[in-house]
Formats: sequence, structure tokens, C-alpha cells
Amino acid sequence: MKVTAMIMAGGRGERFWPKSRKSLPKQFLSLTDDGVTMIQDTVSRILPLVDMEDIYIVTNRDYKELAMEQLPELPEENILCEPVGRNTAPCVGLAAMHIGNKYDDALMIVLPSDHLIKYNSMFLNVLRDACAVAEKGENLTTIGITPNYPETGYGYIKFDPDQSEGRAYGVERFVEKPDLKTAKKYLADESYLWNSGMFVWKVSTILADIEKYIPNTYAGLVKIKEAIGTEEQDAVLEAEFQKMESESIDYGIMEKADHIYVIPGTFGWDDVGSWLAVGRIRSTNEFGNTVQGNVITVETKNSIIEGTDKLIAAVGLKDIIVVDTDDALLICDKGHAGDIKKVLENLRICNRNEYI
Amino acid sequence: MKVTAMIMAGGRGERFWPKSRKSLPKQFLSLTDDGVTMIQDTVSRILPLVDMEDIYIVTNRDYKELAMEQLPELPEENILCEPVGRNTAPCVGLAAMHIGNKYDDALMIVLPSDHLIKYNSMFLNVLRDACAVAEKGENLTTIGITPNYPETGYGYIKFDPDQSEGRAYGVERFVEKPDLKTAKKYLADESYLWNSGMFVWKVSTILADIEKYIPNTYAGLVKIKEAIGTEEQDAVLEAEFQKMESESIDYGIMEKADHIYVIPGTFGWDDVGSWLAVGRIRSTNEFGNTVQGNVITVETKNSIIEGTDKLIAAVGLKDIIVVDTDDALLICDKGHAGDIKKVLENLRICNRNEYI
Repeated sequence: MKVTAMIMAGGRGERFWPKSRKSLPKQFLSLTDDGVTMIQDTVSRILPLVDMEDIYIVTNRDYKELAMEQLPELPEENILCEPVGRNTAPCVGLAAMHIGNKYDDALMIVLPSDHLIKYNSMFLNVLRDACAVAEKGENLTTIGITPNYPETGYGYIKFDPDQSEGRAYGVERFVEKPDLKTAKKYLADESYLWNSGMFVWKVSTILADIEKYIPNTYAGLVKIKEAIGTEEQDAVLEAEFQKMESESIDYGIMEKADHIYVIPGTFGWDDVGSWLAVGRIRSTNEFGNTVQGNVITVETKNSIIEGTDKLIAAVGLKDIIVVDTDDALLICDKGHAGDIKKVLENLRICNRNEYI
Repeated sequence: MKVTAMIMAGGRGERFWPKSRKSLPKQFLSLTDDGVTMIQDTVSRILPLVDMEDIYIVTNRDYKELAMEQLPELPEENILCEPVGRNTAPCVGLAAMHIGNKYDDALMIVLPSDHLIKYNSMFLNVLRDACAVAEKGENLTTIGITPNYPETGYGYIKFDPDQSEGRAYGVERFVEKPDLKTAKKYLADESYLWNSGMFVWKVSTILADIEKYIPNTYAGLVKIKEAIGTEEQDAVLEAEFQKMESESIDYGIMEKADHIYVIPGTFGWDDVGSWLAVGRIRSTNEFGNTVQGNVITVETKNSIIEGTDKLIAAVGLKDIIVVDTDDALLICDKGHAGDIKKVLENLRICNRNEYI
């Protein structure tokens, strides 16, 4: 069966402020040393498995030009723009309708656009296994990441090691972000995986489940499909999307449907969820510092310093994140990385949109 | 007797990098909120006591123009430029010779150019008392600051409360920077003062003591005086200054001479020795932060943040100094303020003089 992919690229990436901005979110940035952006990596990574013309990007209108610039070989009509954000279920449904309009049925790989994967060939093998499971029946397949530390910032997937389908295992349940004690228990248990937000299914399977579990959304998606290629395409998309309820694929479908399978993967995955991730994914020096730019450090350790041409002198720092851009400078204690959103709230309240 | 003053303004002010630079040291900056520079404050503060034409600045050639710009009412010939730095004894001697060339004898107030004084009229009263003591005999008078906390970064002066001369007291000895335990003892004892580096004496008295204790320097100073106003003035100054030994007034004269008196003063004095002083002298907000510029703070306390137009977001910081300038940014833990000089050493070693 034809293998297609859809990449979700509508996120704002606020947690990488001030490098990421509303006008240039994380997926369109390079956070590694090589200058390749995250969405470019996401696309090129799957090219051994999926033809370029079968890769769809779902994003919002503000980012269409960025996507076209960064992915010049992608057909323009494969960049689907949501009129408004309605979480992942309508987003996946929109891509499924476009793919379903092109092929009678097809396998559909669903990927976030802003994750990092170190070992591409291992990742591709996991995708191949997932495709095999998804093709075999009406299975919804997700990729789970084998934990190697007790992360409290991810959701987990509990699987049943005794219920296998190819290389996949039956999902018992999805569990919320745990506290540290629970996360340690999950790590030791070895039947819990991190929920990566990557899925593989047939177009026909996911659409049938959307019809079953979120029928109103399905009805709108059908109208959107019928308008594809017509003069009303944009107007129908706008009208129907506005009406849909916000719903995630996880809550709306995965936690309710049967035949949910997970494939455990270990391929150097990182969701790059905050500046802290930069300390994991970039090379650090002997003092544990991750440094980029024109930087002098004195008695400084375990810090992340990212600048431009301006000289940055870091003296006596420990566990501090410094991000300097042309118009904004962030200095943040590593333990407060989550509070960066408070800076953005403050900026929004004060209507200082030039910095957002 | 005529009252004159000499202000020492040759310092590099490295501890205020990156705001202070070799080309714009601390005494030519405003570290308070009012935009008046420290040397301007130093001059205007004594004008009730000293005529402008009797105020001399001793600095080095690099700063002559800055001094003229910032002190346009000061006669150009009152800005004396040391060809090389030879510490404070030759510096004071040079000014004494110029004042002695103008007046038969005069009182001479010696002041650093980069200290802060909150209560000017109290300070002037102390100077008046010092002038009275200095005029009365062959007395070397220094101003001591009554300690209000056990500072370990200053030298102290032990005086004898039973040996008074006007409002001054006989100095028993000068003591080095103490450890905390000793500083606490000094504070409790009440016969120890901080050594402020401010002096009052007659020109004839200090020159007699330079002749007695540093005769080679005195011989050079005499030649420099003889050349004042002649074509050889600059050449003689250059040649004789080069030959002089580096010697401070404290070690070279004050610790050896007799008739040393100290006047205790409390007039809101701060030597503004490092960025930490900014937290003392500027207003702090309810979180203990001292903030200047375009700054957002989130969960940040006891920090000093000084920027320009660029947005600075400080998140989760505690006891951190942030100083942003057009070409250099410092982020420094308060406990490591002394390590800023290591940044400058590094810059010198790497020959990056544009940042020094």
C-alpha cells in the first residue's frame, strides 16, 4: 500500500523564546549545530520511505511561506493551512481527507515537525514495522519511546507485553504526566513508554474512527473533502473548521478506540521541549556548558549560552540559560525554564507584540 | 590660607566592565540615576569650599579630552597628565608642585574621582575640620569613614580617641583589609575607620614629607616644577616621571610620617568598588532588584540588571548581575564580581582590545 505522511507544523514554540517567535517558531529553526531546520530534518528523514509528493504539512496560514521557503521541493498544494487551530484531531482529519482524495486508501504516518531523532535508520525501521501493523488490519499504531530516565514532563503509554501484533504491542492505557516517584516506577517496570505523538494508520481506519468517536468533526471533514479542487475549497474549509470542536487525537480517538498498538522505539528521540533540551542535544564542554557565539566563560558550569556576534561574558554562573538575539535577551535559571511563558504573557498583556 | 584640591582620575575602573572601558572608565560614567558623572559630582561637591581655578585633575593623557568635555569650566592647564602611572605618591607630588608654583603655600585637599557621597554638606563640614587641623601645624590629615558593617574589602585606620587635635584624632596605625572576624571586631571597637583615600595637608607639609621619605621622587618633582611654563615642561615631566618608583601615599608617607591625624566622617560614602555597589546606591524594588532599561523580571530577586533599549527578560534569577551594552554583555553571579577581571585578562591575552 502507498505510504504517505503528514507533518504537524502549526506550533508556536513559545518555550524557545526569544529565539523562536510567533513569526518564526521552533520547527522552522535549527537548534542543532548543522543549520538544518527541524522541519527540514523531519521531511528528509522519511524520504527513504515516503515520496516527496506524498508528504503533507499541516500548519497555519502565517507559516505557509516559511514552509515553502524551507521545503522548496514540496508541492505547494501539499501545504494545508488550518483556518484556526482546533487541536490535532481535525488537523489529522484534514490531511486524511486530502490523502484520501488522492488515493483510494493509503498508509498515513503522522509526525510532529519539531522533534529530534539521532538515529534515522533505526527510526525508519520502527516506521516500517508500524506500517506493517497498520496495513494488516483496522489498527491504530503509535510509536512509544523506551524511557531511559524518569521524565515527568511526558505522558506514558502502558502496553501489554503478552499481546503482540507483529512488532507492536497492545496498548492497555495512556497515562498522564507522572510525578517523579511514579515515573521511576514506570522506568523500572519496562512496560511503559513515552508518548511521542507519532502515529501510523490507514486513511480508511482513522477516518472510520473519527466518524465513530467525533461524528460532528467527521461531517465537516466530508464537506471539506467534497470541496477539494473546487472554487469553494477555501470557503468551505474556513466555515467547517470554525465549527469543529477542539479535540486531540489522543483524547478524542486513541483513548477510546480498540485495536490500539504501540511499537517501542529507541532511536535517540528528543521532543526538544524547552531550552533545557539544548544541553542534551548539543555538545557540552568539560564544564557542562553548551556554548554558541562569541562567549567567554569564567567559573561557569552546566549553563547554556547562545548568542550572536556580541561578546557575552558569563562569570560564576551555574545552571543558567542565556539566549541573546538582536532585539531580546533571555537570562533564565534552568529550574525556571517553564516560566518563560510568563514573560510572553507579560508581553501580550502590555501589547508589545514586536517581541512575541 | 588658600584652599585648593586635586582629584585623582587616572583609574581604569575595570570592575565596572563592560560599562566602563579603558576608553571610558568609571569616573567618567554616571552610575546613579541622574546622569551626572562621578568626576562631575566630585568637582561640584567641593565648589562651596574651593574655587574652580584651584581644582586640579591628575589623570593620564588618554583621559584629558574626556575631562575637558565633562568639566568645561575647569582651566585646561589644571588637568595634569601623568606620562606613566606611578601610583599615588608621584601623582600627589605632581599636583603639589603645580599648586606650589601658583601659591607660596596652600591647603590641598586630595580626593579620588570615583567615590559616591550622599550627604554633601556633612562632607564639606568634615573637609573644613580637616583644613583647620592641616593648617594649624605640619599635620597630614586623612578622612576616615565610620564603619556601619564589617566590610572586608577596605583597609582600616586605628585611631587614638584620647589624642585629639581639633576634630581630628591621632592615627595609631593603618591596617590591611581584615578577614570577617577581624572586621567585626573593628566594627564593635569603634576606634577603627575605613581608609577612604581622602587627605588634606598643606603643600609645604606634604612636599617636606615626600623629600624626607622618598627623596628620589622629590628630586624629580623639583625638576618638574622648575620646568613648569617653559618649553621643556613636557619633556622634563616625561623623563622625570619615568624614573620615579611606583609608591602609594599610604605606604610611602602616611605609614611612616609623624603627625598623622584622621577625622571620622559619616556622610553616606561609598567607594563604588564593583557592580555590587549599584545595589546599594540605586533604588531597589520590592524584590531587591535594581533595574535599568527595558527589563521584564519573573521570579527574580536581589539582582542588578542594567540594559539599554534591548528587551531583557530575567527569569528565576537570584543574586545575578546583568549588564548589557551595545557590543558586550556581562552575566555575573554576585559572589563572583571579583572575577570580572579574569574576563579582561582573557581579552588581553587574546588581544581583543576592542572590548577592553
